[in-house]
Parts: sequence; C-alpha cells; structure tokens
Amino acid sequence: MSKVASWRQDGAERMASEQMVDGLSRLFHGRTVAVVGASSSPGKLGYEILANIVHGGYEGSVYPVNPKAGEILGLPAYASVSACPSSLDLVVVVVPAPLVPGVLREAAAKGAGAAIIISGGFREAGREDLEEEMLVVVAETGLRLIGPNCQGINYRPNKLCASWPLVTAAGSMAVISQSGTVAATLAGWAVDEGLGISATVSLGNQVDVCETDLIEYFAGDGDTRVMALYLEGAKDGRRFLEVARRAVLSKPIVVLKSGRTGAGQRAAASHTSSLAGRDEVFDAACRQIGIVRVDSIESLYDSAKALESLELDGGDRVMVITSSGGCGILATDEAEGCKLRVPPLPPEAGKDLGEAGLLPTAILSNPLDLTVAPAEHFEAAVRVVERHGLADTYLLIFGDPIPGAAEVTKRLKARVGARIAVAYLGGGDVEKEERLLMHAAGIPVFPTPQRAIRAIRDAAWAARFRARVTRESA
Amino acid sequence: MSKVASWRQDGAERMASEQMVDGLSRLFHGRTVAVVGASSSPGKLGYEILANIVHGGYEGSVYPVNPKAGEILGLPAYASVSACPSSLDLVVVVVPAPLVPGVLREAAAKGAGAAIIISGGFREAGREDLEEEMLVVVAETGLRLIGPNCQGINYRPNKLCASWPLVTAAGSMAVISQSGTVAATLAGWAVDEGLGISATVSLGNQVDVCETDLIEYFAGDGDTRVMALYLEGAKDGRRFLEVARRAVLSKPIVVLKSGRTGAGQRAAASHTSSLAGRDEVFDAACRQIGIVRVDSIESLYDSAKALESLELDGGDRVMVITSSGGCGILATDEAEGCKLRVPPLPPEAGKDLGEAGLLPTAILSNPLDLTVAPAEHFEAAVRVVERHGLADTYLLIFGDPIPGAAEVTKRLKARVGARIAVAYLGGGDVEKEERLLMHAAGIPVFPTPQRAIRAIRDAAWAARFRARVTRESA
Repeated sequence: MSKVASWRQDGAERMASEQMVDGLSRLFHGRTVAVVGASSSPGKLGYEILANIVHGGYEGSVYPVNPKAGEILGLPAYASVSACPSSLDLVVVVVPAPLVPGVLREAAAKGAGAAIIISGGFREAGREDLEEEMLVVVAETGLRLIGPNCQGINYRPNKLCASWPLVTAAGSMAVISQSGTVAATLAGWAVDEGLGISATVSLGNQVDVCETDLIEYFAGDGDTRVMALYLEGAKDGRRFLEVARRAVLSKPIVVLKSGRTGAGQRAAASHTSSLAGRDEVFDAACRQIGIVRVDSIESLYDSAKALESLELDGGDRVMVITSSGGCGILATDEAEGCKLRVPPLPPEAGKDLGEAGLLPTAILSNPLDLTVAPAEHFEAAVRVVERHGLADTYLLIFGDPIPGAAEVTKRLKARVGARIAVAYLGGGDVEKEERLLMHAAGIPVFPTPQRAIRAIRDAAWAARFRARVTRESA
Repeated sequence: MSKVASWRQDGAERMASEQMVDGLSRLFHGRTVAVVGASSSPGKLGYEILANIVHGGYEGSVYPVNPKAGEILGLPAYASVSACPSSLDLVVVVVPAPLVPGVLREAAAKGAGAAIIISGGFREAGREDLEEEMLVVVAETGLRLIGPNCQGINYRPNKLCASWPLVTAAGSMAVISQSGTVAATLAGWAVDEGLGISATVSLGNQVDVCETDLIEYFAGDGDTRVMALYLEGAKDGRRFLEVARRAVLSKPIVVLKSGRTGAGQRAAASHTSSLAGRDEVFDAACRQIGIVRVDSIESLYDSAKALESLELDGGDRVMVITSSGGCGILATDEAEGCKLRVPPLPPEAGKDLGEAGLLPTAILSNPLDLTVAPAEHFEAAVRVVERHGLADTYLLIFGDPIPGAAEVTKRLKARVGARIAVAYLGGGDVEKEERLLMHAAGIPVFPTPQRAIRAIRDAAWAARFRARVTRESA
C-alpha cells in the first residue's frame, strides 16, 4: 500500500468518528482566519477572496499574509503565517502548489485547525507528491484540509465567504460540489430569487475532507435544511452510502452526478481524478438509500428548493390551479411522465367550485383554469378542493402579473400546510416581487409548470421514502 | 356542413392567398387603433392594455372607447367606435362577449381592417353562437380577427404593445402562442436577457386568424429571424404542414406542442377546444418538414435563441472550452445523449495548445479545461482549434466572473463566424453584464452547459435539414 493510500485509509477511519465533525467546526466556525497569498491586485484570487471575506460580513479577525507585507484592503498584511499577531483557526491558501505543504505546517504550528487550499497544480497536474506531503501534515497535526484545487467555502452562519463570487444572503440550502462553478451557480440563483444559502463548499481534489465528511457535518448543522451535491464520483463509495443513508432520514439530499456517459467519465477522470464507477450502480444505490438523484443543474436547484420547504406525505395527487390554461396542460403532461396524478374532480367538488365566486370563464376541472383571475380566486378554489380532500400537493400557476399572489399563498399555506408549490411566469415585475415574498415565506416558486412538477415528484418521492423507512423501523 | 364550418372552409381558402398576408398587415402595421372597453381603473384589462399601448411607444393614434367617455390616461375617450374622430385600422376589444359582434360591425364600418378580441366567454364557455356571428362579420366585411379569448399582440416594429405585460425591447424572435402566458414568459425572458422580441401573438380561440396564417406572415417579416410557437393543436393540420414546410426554408420554426399525454389532451380540449391529434404523428411530421420540436418552455426559448443567431453547417463536432471542469463534463454527458460528438484532440493540436500560453493547470483535451483563466485564454484556444479545423460548433463555458468574456467572444465570432454558443454561469454580476453584451452582439448565451448543448443540437439539426433540402432541390 502506498504511503498516500495508507494515510487515506487511516483518515477514513478517523473521519468516521464524531471527532471528525468537531474538527470541521473550526473550518466553519473559526474566529481568526489568515489569507495566505493575499494580493492587493483586484482580479487576482488572493485579492478577491480576501475582499469577499471582508465585504461578506465576517466578524472574526482577518490576517492577509503576503511577503511584501504592507496593507491590503485597509488591513495590515503579515509577511508569513508565523508573523500573524494571534493564533489561527483557519488558513485560506492561494500560493503556488509547491509552497503549500510548508504553509500548512506553519499554520498548524500557529494553532490552525483547518485549511482551505484554493491553489491548483497538484494531482490534476501530475504532482501527487505534493498531496502526499499535505497528507503527512494532516496525519501529524490533525489539521483538516478542504481542496486543493477548489473554490473555497462560504458559510453564512459564520458570515464567512472564503470563496467567489460574493454571496451574503443566508438561507437553508447547503451546496457541496466538486465543481466550484456549480456551487456558485446554485448560490447565485438562490440569491437572485431571495432564497439564499446556508453554505457552499467546493471540494476540489479532496485530499482530506470529502463529500461524505460534509454530508455528516451538514446533517447536524442547525442552519441547513437540505443538501444539494454535485459529484463526479465518491471518494469512498461504501462510506458515502452508509453516511448518506443515515443523513437522509433527518435531512434530504439531492445529487447531480456527472460522468453518466463514457465520454463524460473520461472527462471527469481528468478533472478531479474521480473514479466514477458504473452509473447504473450509483443510480440504484441512490434510490435504495433515499437520495434524490437529478440530471441537470436546474433540477439540482429545483428539487433542493422543493425539499427545503415542502412537507409532503408522499401522495401522488396533484391539484393544478392556474390562471393560464396552456400552463395547466403543460403541467398535466409533465405529471403523467413523472408518475403523478392530476385526477379529475368529482361532480360535487365541481358543483362547490361553481358556487365559489370564480369567473364565469373558469374551467372547473383539474387542471382548474381560473382564466384571468385575481389572487383571491386561487384561495377560494383551494379551500373547496381541500374541503373535499382531493389533493396531496397543490400546484398554483400564476401565469400573469397577479398582485397579492404571495399574500394569498401564505394564507393558504397556513391553512393546508407546506403542500403548495408555485409556478409563476409571464408576470413581469409583479412576478419578481411576488416570488421574493413567497420565498421569504418558505413557499417554493418555480419558473415553469414543468419544473415545478418535476420538483414535486422528487419531494413526494423523498417523503414516501422517509415514511416507509420510519414505518419499517417502528 | 354547419354555417361555421362552411365559413371556416371559405376562410381557409382565402387565407391561403397572398391577400391574407396583406390583410394581416393592418393588424401589425396599423396607424390608428381604438381600445374598445378602455377603463380608467388600473388592474382592469381595459386599462392595462391601453396603458401598454400608450407607454409602449406606439406612434399612431389611440382612441379609448368607453360609453362614459371622459378622459383616460390623458386621452379623450369616445362613447362608441362610431364616435372615434377618424377612420380606424385596428380595434382592440375588451368588452363582454355578447357585445363583441356588434363592436366588430361598427369597427368594419369605421374602416378597420383587423380586430384583436381579448374578451373570453365564447366557445370555451359554450357560446359557439357568438363565434359564428363574428365569422359572419369576417366574411361580409373582410375584417381579420385575432382571438377571442386571447392576450393580444405585441409587434415591436410598430411599437404596438396591445397585450400584457408591457414589453418594449425589440429583437428578432416572433412568439406565436395558444397560451398568452407562454408568450409573455418568452418575451419576459428575452427582455431580461437583453434580447427582446419582434412580436408576440396570443392566438386564443382562433376563430379567424390561426397559427398557420401567422407562420405565413412572419416568414415574410423582415424584422423576424425565428419563430417560436406554443400550440395545443393545429386548426388545419394539412395547411399547417404545407405552409410550415415552405417557411422553414427561409426562417427556422421551433414548436412546443402540449397534449403529449392523454391527460394533457383532455385538458387541451377544455382550454382552446383544440383537437390535438396523435402526438407521434405530429412529431414525425415536424421531423419530416424541418420544424424543431421541443418539450419544454425553456427549450422553446433556448432553441429559438440558438436558431436566431447561430449559422451552423450541421456538423456534429462540438469543441467545449471551459473555465469549469465540472461544467465541461456535464456538457460532454449531455452531448452524448444529443448525438453530438465532443471528439478528442489529435496530438498535434494538443501540442499547439500547450504552446498557446494557457495556464499550466489547463487540461488540454476536449473538453478543454482552462481552469481559472482570463477571457484571452478562450481566444487563444479557439484560434488553435480553428487552425486545425476540429470544430463545427464551439461551446465556450464561462464558469466564473470573467470580465472581457464578451469582447473576446465577439472577436472570435468575427474570426470563425456565428458558430459559437456560450454557457455563462456562476459569474455573479459580471455574468449578467457580459451576457447582455454578448446578446447585443448576436452571440447566444445559455444559463447551463446542458441547455446550451440541447440548443446546439437543435440548431445543428435544422441546419442539416436545410442543407439536405437545398441539395435535393438543386
């Protein structure tokens, strides 16, 4: 067994312990951070990351480290890690790869518990030897490493954005990703839509901390309600499945895994040297342990969003209530492909809807097409349908600028529970405002009926899975 | 044959003539428009549409018509259509259904050539008799009708937004839709992304003007480069195919047709009384005559966007150049499913790339992972690949905030032609700015690599189709 493989195995055993999770808390909750390789040149990573820590609201101490010292972003810079004026919790490392192992030793000597190594130029560039050196430091000092070759972390409960771009909106979705870009993309969308994130973690080469460690950590993180993962492979498949199996019972996990095809797997091998394994095996494993597997970046976001806020019982009946007939049909088509039902209304419900004060142009079926209706008609309709007990999940499609949609949906959520998903489209500026209000109230809003239906499918499946496991273990 | 059916048949023959297209020009290019049922209450359609015409930049004369007369939005209102102070080109009708036939007669008497009937409450509400009355007016007066039960039209070359929401950005995509919401959604996205539209037309019940008439019209519209259609069925399938077959040779057509499933078809029958027909038949017909058929609202937009600006030769080789390794893999996976190739680079090209000044961390294959690179590295890479003649289409994935991405891509477009699609994600505010700049330069930008690949597939397919037809008819 090579030295690296041996360290890895030791590492795997150690990480499985509770202590591992404690170890990571210095990474996420550290109060002193040094940025090693800090730069005063905007555009350079050593500048951007320092700037994002400073502008991201971090309330701990920040020490730029740069051999030329001086001042960066108004902060005194220090010539080396050792020169920093206090002990450290965390170092963020942006210096060239060959310098990294030395920096890590210095950091450990300075009391650091964790390091984020942004720098590339390791295994992916044929320098496995440098990773081996880093693992020696890990084993000897207990320092925990994120990366190398990664885009850092952003952890909003500690207001620490040691990553890019700058994202400050706090939400409850943790994004764990072998692609920094995928993490940044989800975070960006979540910000634009008023949702925010609890964390993004870019994994890079995973010399030490891997996706499974993070699943374990975020399963216990009080600020996180759902985990969204982009993976190219699992570092240790068996442990991944064991840990995820436990984690999903308390917190939903959505995974986008690339390398579905032969060409994709070859590309993945170059990117983070992941061994993707057979795709069907991974797929079956996900289904078996309750991970929601998706096939696109949008679905990763959508399904995580749905799982973050919906509380479903797993039933397959969707009541579609819409101001847009066309969108109702698109939802119905999609539901059939998703093995959800849009069941017809029984005559007595139709009769009650007929007396609910809807427009004479309304089409009283499922989908229920309210036509150009005010928000209150959605409320009247849901109340009738709920009285008849006809829906497991409601999909409200606001297909026009409909002022007051958020107020009405919030009232309905209070009445029927977190079983309402919304598709809002074609609504111009009103749509944008109402979406923010709904997201602030924990109501998931999707940009099309089709994406809403797919997200409902995944949330309903996860609910059924949890219910079954709970039943079986009772 | 019922009176309606007979009028329809007469209509179909008449519409097939060139005169039909002339008839529609009063609809799109009219210089005097009356809004019948104009209201002074914001929120009412009769107010919103008038406001959108006024605020949308329309330079012709606008006459609000309201029995109470007075003034609306600073314009003098007239008690009736007959009372308007000049002859009319176009009336937009928002009054209750039973009043509509009378209004149309008045409008025709006042010289109007076209009417847009927003009002619902016709066939979809069991009042086929009112539609019959309207068809009598059409036959007797030559007035052309859009609707009823529709969301109006927006035609930017005439700065006429007789629809909602207000959209003023002028582009070259014409959206023709049996769902007003789907049209508004595409227009909204096009505005947000700096693309704009040439037109949206909401079809409604298609008593007179139908999707096929509009395909014929926009095939000859100098401001339109691509048509995006949402359909629930074709009014006259045979004529639709004949007209579309000719039209696609000059202008690409993308179609989203709902009612793919049994449940969806039943819903479609309630919405616009469309007879959807067998879905597979429609699918096969599209493939045979060169219509790009898509299966989601996003794909309708994406593929139309790609066809609006890309000029491909139909080859299947995609060169993926990326700053994000993960996104390169996702693109590669998707390409395999789309029957596109992401072929490996021959050694000599790899050697030249090695000397092109890229980062030492770059992975010199296809996908070509530049890692955290400046925009100029994309340029250097494309130049090498182009010299070796390795790509039919380029997909540039900017997976970070990359200032200057638009400038570089514009230079590359000038060099290699309109064969470059872009996926830009994870780039925060820089991304948003660069996307606007690229769209202004006719370079299509997609929010994920997967959506970019699917759009490239459709654009390449359409190019192959056109090339084959041209060859066969030569």
